[in-house]
Formats: sequence, C-alpha cells, structure tokens
Amino acid sequence: MNDKTLDSIALHDLLTGAALLGGGGGGPRAGAKPLIDYIEQLGRPVRLNALSELPATLWAGVVAGIGAPAAATHGPAFTTAPRQAFTRLAAASGRQLLAVLPGETGAMNSIIPALVAAQLGLPLVDADSAGRALPTLGLAAYNFAAPPNPLVLANEPAEGTNAVEAVLDTPTPADADALVRGLVETTAFGEEGAFSTWALQIGQLAGACVAGSVSRAIRVGAALRRAKAIGSDPIAAVRDALGGRLVVLASGPITAVATREGGGFDMSRVILHDDTADVAVIAQNENLLAWRTDKDAPLAAAPDTLAWLTADGEPLSNAEITAQTVGTRVHLLGIPADPLLRREPLAGRFTQLLAQVGFFGNAPVLLWGGDRFVTTQDSVR
Amino acid sequence: MNDKTLDSIALHDLLTGAALLGGGGGGPRAGAKPLIDYIEQLGRPVRLNALSELPATLWAGVVAGIGAPAAATHGPAFTTAPRQAFTRLAAASGRQLLAVLPGETGAMNSIIPALVAAQLGLPLVDADSAGRALPTLGLAAYNFAAPPNPLVLANEPAEGTNAVEAVLDTPTPADADALVRGLVETTAFGEEGAFSTWALQIGQLAGACVAGSVSRAIRVGAALRRAKAIGSDPIAAVRDALGGRLVVLASGPITAVATREGGGFDMSRVILHDDTADVAVIAQNENLLAWRTDKDAPLAAAPDTLAWLTADGEPLSNAEITAQTVGTRVHLLGIPADPLLRREPLAGRFTQLLAQVGFFGNAPVLLWGGDRFVTTQDSVR
Repeated sequence: MNDKTLDSIALHDLLTGAALLGGGGGGPRAGAKPLIDYIEQLGRPVRLNALSELPATLWAGVVAGIGAPAAATHGPAFTTAPRQAFTRLAAASGRQLLAVLPGETGAMNSIIPALVAAQLGLPLVDADSAGRALPTLGLAAYNFAAPPNPLVLANEPAEGTNAVEAVLDTPTPADADALVRGLVETTAFGEEGAFSTWALQIGQLAGACVAGSVSRAIRVGAALRRAKAIGSDPIAAVRDALGGRLVVLASGPITAVATREGGGFDMSRVILHDDTADVAVIAQNENLLAWRTDKDAPLAAAPDTLAWLTADGEPLSNAEITAQTVGTRVHLLGIPADPLLRREPLAGRFTQLLAQVGFFGNAPVLLWGGDRFVTTQDSVR
Repeated sequence: MNDKTLDSIALHDLLTGAALLGGGGGGPRAGAKPLIDYIEQLGRPVRLNALSELPATLWAGVVAGIGAPAAATHGPAFTTAPRQAFTRLAAASGRQLLAVLPGETGAMNSIIPALVAAQLGLPLVDADSAGRALPTLGLAAYNFAAPPNPLVLANEPAEGTNAVEAVLDTPTPADADALVRGLVETTAFGEEGAFSTWALQIGQLAGACVAGSVSRAIRVGAALRRAKAIGSDPIAAVRDALGGRLVVLASGPITAVATREGGGFDMSRVILHDDTADVAVIAQNENLLAWRTDKDAPLAAAPDTLAWLTADGEPLSNAEITAQTVGTRVHLLGIPADPLLRREPLAGRFTQLLAQVGFFGNAPVLLWGGDRFVTTQDSVR
C-alpha cells in the first residue's frame, strides 16, 4: 500500500482545515488539540490511505464524537470513548474492522478517527460522509450504503462518572439520532459521547462517501498556515486550496451572539455587521442559514458550507464564538456542497432541517457563475 | 415439576392484588387489562413455579415495563416490547433463558412477565425483587445477586413509530437507570419502555429476591374479590391475606392531586382529609412518604409499602388518581417492607430517594406492636 503517514504538521493542518470546513460545527479546536498531543505521546504513526489503496472487501467502521460541541470545551479529552465505541462496534456487528472512517470533517471529528487509527494501528481512510460537519446522522452520505445500525455510543467518563455504553438497534438514522440525543443528555454523557457505526466494506463506499476529504482538509490547513507565515491573504489561500470553490458571503465585526446548549445540540445565532446591513447566521451545531437583513431570501444555506474565518486567518467554530468574541472581525465563507448531499433522501432532510429553524422556502445554492462561484442571491443583491 | 397454571380468575386476582401491593406505582390496572385479554387470546397457559420447583442451574431473566406509569394509560398495549427485550437479553448475555422473573409487584409489571411466559412457553417464577413496585433499579433485591448489566430496553412502537432497542452496558444500577430514563424520554419510547436484565441462575436468587410474591399478590386479589362478592370488609380481607401485616395509616376523601410526568417518572402529591387533619402522600411513581399535617414526622415511608384502597375495596395506583378522583373516599394502607429492602446498599438508596422529595430525617418503620403492626409514629399520634 502507498501509505501516507500524517506527521505533527499534517495533524495540525488537518485540525485547522477541518475547523474551517466544519462550517461552524465539528467542535472547538481547543477540544481537539489535546487529542493531537495524545497521538504524539502515543508515538504511533497515523497512516492515511485513499480508498483506492485499500482492498474492496476490507471492513471499516466510522467513529466520531456526537453531541453539543460546546460540551467539548468543558468535558474530559476524548481519549478512551472513541476506541471503546469502535471496538464494541466490531463485536456488535460481528466484523473485523481493519480501517477507520471519519464521520465528518470538523475539528474534533477529523482528529478523533486519527486517534483511534493510531491507538489500534489501523489505517485512516481518506474520506468522510460529507466533506463538512453535519448536525444529524441522516445527512451523511454513508446512508447511501446502509443505515447507521447497529450504533455504539460510549461516554468519556468524567471524574466520578462511570464508563457506560449503549448498543442501539434502530431502522432509521432519525431513530438512532433521537436515542443518541436522549442518552447524551444524561449525566454520564454530559451532552457529548463517542459513537461508532456504519461497519462497511471499502467497496460499499463508492457513491456513498466524499472521497479525499481528509487530504482536502489538510490542504486547506496548510494553505492557511503558509499564508500566515508569509503574511498573504488567507481567503485567497483557502480559495486556491479548494480549487476556487469559495464565495465570500459577508465580512465584518461580530456584533451579537445568542447560544443555547441543550437537546444534544448547540443552537446559536451570530450577527455580524457587513458594511450596510447586518448578517444573521443561524446554526444547529453547524451553520444552516445566513440571512442579510436587507434581503428577503437567505444568502446561503446548508448543505452548502457556511464557514467562519477571522480577518487574521483563523477558522472559528460556533463553540468558540461567545460574548468574548463580539467585536472580532470575521469573514463568512460559502463553500459549495458535495453534489451527493443534494441527492435524496439527504436533500429532503436538509430541507427539513432548514424548516426547523424557520426557513420554508427554496434554499439558495452556491454555483459556478462563469468565472467564479456565486450565490443564487447575487442577482438580487 | 409441580406446575400451577394461572387461569383467567388467577390472572385477574394477580392484577388486583399487585395493583394494591404496588404501593401507588406499577402502572394503572387499565393498562394491564388488555395484556390479560391478550394472554387469554393466545390460549397458552401461564405456568407459575416456586423457586424450589426449578433447577438451581436454570437461567432466568427479568422483564418489566419502565417509565412514567401514566404513559401506560395513553400508549399502545405492551404486547411485543417485553418479549423483544427478553429475547434480546438472551442474545446479549449469551444465556439460554428458560424462566421469566417478574421485576416487581404492580399492575403492569406483574402481568408483563406472565405475558412473556405465555408467549415463549416458559415458566413464570413465583418471586420478584421487592414484593412491591420500585421507582429505580438500584432498589431491587436482585442487586444482591448481580448488577442489572447488560440491560436491554425496547419500545412498544406506536402508530408511525419504528421499533428500536438499546443494549446498555453499565457498571451500576444508577447508571443503567439514568440511561434508561434518557431513552424513555425520546419520542420513540414516549415515556415508557420494556426492559430485560438480570440474567440469573435460579440458585443465585437465594437472599436476592422476595420469594412467593406472585402467589401473595394473587391471594390479596382473591381476598378482595371475595370480600366484594359477599359485601365484607375489604381491609380485613387484605389483612388476613397478608397474615396481619397491615396498618391503616389514614382514611378519608381525596381533596387534592398534583402530578407531573417527566424525567421518566410520575411525580405526584395526593392530599386526603383524615378526620382532624390532612394527610399528604408524596410519590415518585410509587408512594414514598405520608405526612400528617399535625405531626412533625411522617406517618410512614418507603421501603414500607403505602397503598391505596378505595372505601368500596378497589386498589388505586397513582396513575389512576386524577382531578376526576377528587372526592373519592380512600384508605391509605401501610404494609411492612420485606427485610431485604432494609439491607445495604438498598436501605441507603431508599434514604437517598426520600431526601430527593425533601425528607432528611430517620424514616419511620412499620413494626409489630405486640398484637398488631403499628407505625413508629403511633406513640406520638
């Protein structure tokens, strides 16, 4: 196999890039940094393999954190729960899992599978379910291969808390999500847990994953690192790393933040002032909608990624946007969604998600405008 | 084996007796009656076996409903979830379960194991964990044999809801309880579920169960049925059936009811007017404390059973006491707890439970007063 080993620089680039591509979700970078430290202390390499480098019959499993990302800022580091969930999935599914699949792209959830890969000496697969972070299981491209069943949920025991785990047997991702949210709200979980599901053969992933999403996140992180080092424009660096697939939706200082942690989610509304109007970004963990107060339709909406980048080139997740962040100058970047996320039943689930935060219209789409990517709202702007 | 088969009269007597002995908990009789109808339609016998009639090496499993008892008045009849949970426990524990153990004594939970026994053609064991109903797993005498691990929780799917189940792996009953409560609060469960746990060999049950509790409940139910038929005193009938182990704590009309369903429990406070003072009965599913407003200490407290019996001889559970029940004349009966429930760690858990509803003192105990059972409060009454 043509292994690529992720060194410390690559892991930090992965963290930076995933923090941006997570689109406001995926947890805080501060929660993931101890996991990189832990990987480095382990002293075991993280091998990254493209799908094409792995046998089609090899069984892999998805592992990730789930819950309210803000919990990752006050809970214990996720050093045992992900491995525990992954190992238990092997038993529950009766499969020998020989590769680790990222669940999504985001600060915590791009590093957690790398950690499990290092702990178990297994390859990390260069793919994920979306190329971004997702608020619910039903939005993942892995659903095109199979439902997330069985699903193992394990807690990371805080001091004075016992290790617990649950194996869930549900027919649909919505059922799995609901039970997971019920469990993570209990004291043993404290609003967050690690899950493992989708025991899949590599051959099942064709058309059921976003290939190359780990190396894409590393490229974005490396571009930001280099731009910072030489003082060049971070937006241009990210645009290049994404092959031009980027739209600047808004720029300006954050003027207000309202967040609520509960139901296993962080709900938030962030306001920034862009020149002549306010822009409101609505999130359920991930950013779902961007409204400009002088427009009657949203600027952009999920499944397109709505990502935060500070004026000095640092990605921000919603878990990091607090009252203390008010005044920070940021860009709201739009990154076109992978086409898989616009296929049914995923597309309809994104529509439902937008309705849950009050949008019942036809969502705008970031698209190629001839010379650059634009939002469908540009014509009326 | 010296099987005793429970006919329709015995099943109805079991329901009546268990409704009384449940001590306010155990669910409404109305929720259990469809299960008896279902057993009768099945046309398969329910065989009841004493512990001594079963091989010590035989594996048995506990099955019961759990959640907010009031949910049983509006949810679907529990005809599939208990069997599903029991069957899955066999797989999860790797044991061939050849007998069904009641979890507790109460209207729903004395009939549910009889139903599973009939469905699977297995004997029902004449025992339970307490001789009464219990609000949490940690209070069960089965804990003297083993913790409730693994525990399977299954839902009874309502129309438009999918069948889901969870296998919980937790080190303590408190952890299992917390996860169960988190799950039953989700929409798939609707505040109630069926669980199966404690895969135990019959030989492990010595000193870890209340033996004979099914036949005791049948005796109480039969006594009430006969008293009603001949118009004799129902309290005297129950006292006889319990070998004199009964104290009348209060008698009078219900004057107020306050209930709250949530957190997987029904919390309630029922007031009755007893002659010269009000009596307040505080419940978390089951009745935990009886306060007389002119006394500084409670009349009685869990683990002793505080049971409702109407003036015309009908047991009442808290799920049946509503605004419509105000004005009904009732007796509050005290039934001394099985001594096992006063052993640690169970005793301390009852103390914690009482503290949760505001009582931090030394709880009164129903005891033998020389010629009859009395409450320790009689001296100051």
